[in-house]
Amino acid sequence: MTLPPAHVAGAGMIRFGKYPADVTLERLAVGAARAAMTDAGAALRQIDAVYVGHVFGGPVAGQRIAVQLGLDGLPVSNHENYCASGATAIREAWVALAAGLHDVVLVIGVEKMTDRVAGGVRPDPSDLDAAVGLVMAAGHAMSARRYMHDHGVTREAIAAVAVKNHAHSVHNPFAQYQRPVSLEEVLAARTIADPLGLLDCSPISDGAAALVMCTPAGLRRLGLSGVTPRILGCGLVSGGVQDGSRPLNDEDVSRRAGEAAWQLTGITPSDVDIVEMHDCFTIAEIVRLEGLGLVPVGEGAHWTEHGHTSIGGKLPVNASGGLLSRGHPVGATGVAQACELTWQLRGTAGGRQVEGARTGLAYCKGGTVSGTDGGSVTTLVMQS
Amino acid sequence: MTLPPAHVAGAGMIRFGKYPADVTLERLAVGAARAAMTDAGAALRQIDAVYVGHVFGGPVAGQRIAVQLGLDGLPVSNHENYCASGATAIREAWVALAAGLHDVVLVIGVEKMTDRVAGGVRPDPSDLDAAVGLVMAAGHAMSARRYMHDHGVTREAIAAVAVKNHAHSVHNPFAQYQRPVSLEEVLAARTIADPLGLLDCSPISDGAAALVMCTPAGLRRLGLSGVTPRILGCGLVSGGVQDGSRPLNDEDVSRRAGEAAWQLTGITPSDVDIVEMHDCFTIAEIVRLEGLGLVPVGEGAHWTEHGHTSIGGKLPVNASGGLLSRGHPVGATGVAQACELTWQLRGTAGGRQVEGARTGLAYCKGGTVSGTDGGSVTTLVMQS
Repeated sequence: MTLPPAHVAGAGMIRFGKYPADVTLERLAVGAARAAMTDAGAALRQIDAVYVGHVFGGPVAGQRIAVQLGLDGLPVSNHENYCASGATAIREAWVALAAGLHDVVLVIGVEKMTDRVAGGVRPDPSDLDAAVGLVMAAGHAMSARRYMHDHGVTREAIAAVAVKNHAHSVHNPFAQYQRPVSLEEVLAARTIADPLGLLDCSPISDGAAALVMCTPAGLRRLGLSGVTPRILGCGLVSGGVQDGSRPLNDEDVSRRAGEAAWQLTGITPSDVDIVEMHDCFTIAEIVRLEGLGLVPVGEGAHWTEHGHTSIGGKLPVNASGGLLSRGHPVGATGVAQACELTWQLRGTAGGRQVEGARTGLAYCKGGTVSGTDGGSVTTLVMQS
Repeated sequence: MTLPPAHVAGAGMIRFGKYPADVTLERLAVGAARAAMTDAGAALRQIDAVYVGHVFGGPVAGQRIAVQLGLDGLPVSNHENYCASGATAIREAWVALAAGLHDVVLVIGVEKMTDRVAGGVRPDPSDLDAAVGLVMAAGHAMSARRYMHDHGVTREAIAAVAVKNHAHSVHNPFAQYQRPVSLEEVLAARTIADPLGLLDCSPISDGAAALVMCTPAGLRRLGLSGVTPRILGCGLVSGGVQDGSRPLNDEDVSRRAGEAAWQLTGITPSDVDIVEMHDCFTIAEIVRLEGLGLVPVGEGAHWTEHGHTSIGGKLPVNASGGLLSRGHPVGATGVAQACELTWQLRGTAGGRQVEGARTGLAYCKGGTVSGTDGGSVTTLVMQS
């Protein structure tokens, strides 16, 4: 089944990076929200409700943000699905618009990690795998080793994901990193979990991103006409319990998340022109593209090396720089992906524009749950 | 505007109270969820999605719960609006059913406070009022003093709320406290913030509550016929910025939350037969009933003393025992209120049954935001 799409009337971000302690979570969010509202030409009184995705902002963070924006009094809700929190907030907003509950809503994804998550994100005490050492970087390192073994792929081919994404974000003014990195730099970086080095891992980041989403009636309220990118839908699945019989890079959870998106939106993998992929680690971009059915299994690393996933290639992935180079303030990431797709589908992405992009997919994966192949996965589909 | 109602096919709780450290958040939630699914006659494969409200459970707590239930793989989302988190999860589920996204969903409210919030709930660092001493109990104490002054009400009349709610929960097997307390006991209890004593304050609690909610198609899937209580809608508002000109017990936020409910559901205050009210403190029950327009301003304490808000009175409030006596595991409270209304509207509430109850209202208020009159307020309307 499909639901009515939501129009993206405005998109806004602040540059991701490391902000001082006196730059609060609220201030990050306000910057992104004002940019999105300016982009939409939306006044405060035209907003019906606020949906906020974050993980570490503390209780009623969304309400504190709304007050700073001058949007006190409205319906405000906080949504958490770990690194898919921002995308989950978009999903809830899309559903509310589809139901006819609201006509113009503001969606904000935000995270202040440098002071709230000092020293990095710690696994939940219930995560038995992490307790014995299988933290996230270790899991992805195992995935990389297995992938190299199974498909005869070199370490260099996996490192190529970082080179590509850093090259893309040279043209992204909102990216945490805006300089190219060479293959040699990626290979020479400090080892985090063999074979992955520092540049194979997304950084700790602060940042915020926002959308103004609306129904057709909402577009009229804002005085907008003409084509704005539409959110056709957003799949949401959780990890499945694993009995140990599946190969390490089986990516069943990505396959199911893809199917959820195709069913909700009626598009197929061959319709997708551009992807914003949750590349929390280099290898993750590769295996998730394969799990979604966007790239044949075992060919993802070759696609990267041969430029197929670069801007100008047959399936550009992370034109924004992705998590690796745009940065990864966890609650903000899903909304930042949607901002990037908005700009790409409008044709206003400047030096990183993917020509002719008409249908985009954004994928987020958030958290781990012991004994399963993931916490939460979202698949957002947008079309011009 | 109104949206289609959601049917409550099943309701379940565990007894609220203080559980040992080895009884996990997940175990609390599983107990409530299984009770709700048994009540609905719903099998695991009949559930489309899981909505979880909690505050302190940590990232992807809902996904961990779903795995323990055997509901891995489904769409799961975590919703936080402080003490209105459970009600917000119900609201999001109602919207998703109204949009046609799902047909049968499981909603869980849960909190394990005794180990996650040792020593009580701390205010957010950004709460400037709390930083200088105006913590929640102090604010409600000021409210009580002002109310006594403005309306010529005695301390005893405010204490009567605790006496009433403890008397009600003698008949509630899920209540944390199940023995009556006398007026003398309330008055003699240790002072927390003058004039409020320990028995004027809701306790620190662990607990969980759950609902199975569905569309008409979902009812058919479950093989249910006949009347099940319906959720007509749920208002959600945030606190408004205060300039200091409003009286302390003005309760503008409650008035706006009530208006949101009346607009979404088409009911009026005179339709309401029974109320589950967020009595985090005795005085809060009184001023919020007045703010909603259910009781004339200044008469709430007299209504309590004269039994009008007791079971058998003209507007029974907190037949369950409320937060004061059923307990207040913050994320679970909104769902527990909906469970109570379900049983009352079915006529199966046993010794605490309100005869002839047809329309119920549940009110939650969650969190504080500096400079405003509240964090988040929900107003859930149910009808048999």
